Amino acid sequence: MTLCGVGLIGGSLALVARRERLVEEIVGLGRTQANLDVALKRGIVDSATRDPDEAAHGADLVMLAVPLRAMPETLAAMAPRLPAEAVISDVGSVKGWVVGTLEPLLGPRMALVAAHPVAGKEITGAAAADEELFVGHRVIITPSGRSTPAALDKIERLWRATGARVERMSPAEHDEILARISHLPQMVASALAAALAGECVGGREVAQYGAGGLRDTTRIAASSAEMWRDIVLTNRAAIVKALEDFRITFGEFELAIRDGNVAGFEALFNRGRAMRERVQ
Amino acid sequence: MTLCGVGLIGGSLALVARRERLVEEIVGLGRTQANLDVALKRGIVDSATRDPDEAAHGADLVMLAVPLRAMPETLAAMAPRLPAEAVISDVGSVKGWVVGTLEPLLGPRMALVAAHPVAGKEITGAAAADEELFVGHRVIITPSGRSTPAALDKIERLWRATGARVERMSPAEHDEILARISHLPQMVASALAAALAGECVGGREVAQYGAGGLRDTTRIAASSAEMWRDIVLTNRAAIVKALEDFRITFGEFELAIRDGNVAGFEALFNRGRAMRERVQ
Repeated sequence: MTLCGVGLIGGSLALVARRERLVEEIVGLGRTQANLDVALKRGIVDSATRDPDEAAHGADLVMLAVPLRAMPETLAAMAPRLPAEAVISDVGSVKGWVVGTLEPLLGPRMALVAAHPVAGKEITGAAAADEELFVGHRVIITPSGRSTPAALDKIERLWRATGARVERMSPAEHDEILARISHLPQMVASALAAALAGECVGGREVAQYGAGGLRDTTRIAASSAEMWRDIVLTNRAAIVKALEDFRITFGEFELAIRDGNVAGFEALFNRGRAMRERVQ
Repeated sequence: MTLCGVGLIGGSLALVARRERLVEEIVGLGRTQANLDVALKRGIVDSATRDPDEAAHGADLVMLAVPLRAMPETLAAMAPRLPAEAVISDVGSVKGWVVGTLEPLLGPRMALVAAHPVAGKEITGAAAADEELFVGHRVIITPSGRSTPAALDKIERLWRATGARVERMSPAEHDEILARISHLPQMVASALAAALAGECVGGREVAQYGAGGLRDTTRIAASSAEMWRDIVLTNRAAIVKALEDFRITFGEFELAIRDGNVAGFEALFNRGRAMRERVQ
């Protein structure tokens, strides 16, 4: 296996693949030598390189764990030296775009199995890799036209070994679900935090008064702008639709409050409560 | 001290008042005998009654810890039997409305010191009372025309004894700040949860796919509709303004994403990140 991007997600997966003896040898492809050195020292990879050509050589399985929009160029740089029957997989948060941009780069006998482990932490890098990271989390595998049964089986076995709950759906379904339960909450949290940025009342900075509710509601606003820029650019249509749905419901709240419509307010509020109880 | 409403907040305050010997005797006024029995058993109150007349007798200090909109009727029911120089205080989440509705009910020599401990838990009732509840939290005292220096001093001493950070500001400033950092996040979280209620993609209920981000962002959507109905009815103007500010910023996010405006998106996102870092 060649692991492209030896960070939290890729590194954690590599630790499991090695523990379960699902791969013979792991080659790490990275951008910075410092992080590759950490990965070598921790035994996440057997060898490390910053050269795509070298990383491609003999790779039966290529696991793309680089930022979303770096995936096509990473695969393109490796393609000329990859074995004819290499299996390509990834861990990106958007699946339609990944499948659509990677498929044209595949050799005729290669296979692609896109997947998304729905797990993460605020920390990054090989130093944060943790073989327990995926336990109990969902991993969504999104078969497409270039997913062979053998390649699907290989990738599913790998993810099952992490202790995750593995499930299959289409790339489009994945992207619509994630737009609603991950990308929308991120935009709402970021917009809430942005709306309060610099706000003062009587010379007092309002952010200083935030208690538990504000802390929870805006926690993910501290996420990386780079990562989210990639997600909004590659899952735009589904996110725009989810934002619109939220805007409509928020407008209903606004109207009920402005009009002192108690029954309307309670109905909306209780709809939210009921949904919250469904979140695991 | 007569404690009207022997719940989480009132009960916790009573435990501190007793521990610090700031009051001689605590009378509990409640609606349900079961909760009053718990308060008696836990030593939160010395005696308990469901009769406002009885509760008013000899009360130097009346602490209103009932739901917001029940405060005027509670005080009105006690007023005829209260000592002429009684001090009235409360723990409500909205202050302008409390001051405005309670002042007309005061006898000529009574004083009012409205206050808001910015603390809470998802649990309620005398059984949940905890003398450590306020440690490190903010308590905002909102002096008004009927707050005498002696009464202000009495209430401030009581709250300082809880270990809270006590601060003074006007009722209007309090309500504007809380509208932004407490009432707005609640409406945003409830609207997000309501927007996702019952949503399905390809027969899959999206709520089931929520991970950490959705869990945090919607946690407070599980709050009590009753309490929030009272807050939106009594702090409507400030909340409507805060909702409007959020709607504008959310609209900017929406536009930047729809137009693929990367620079605009990053600027907004990073504004949110910077604000998040200011939240303690």
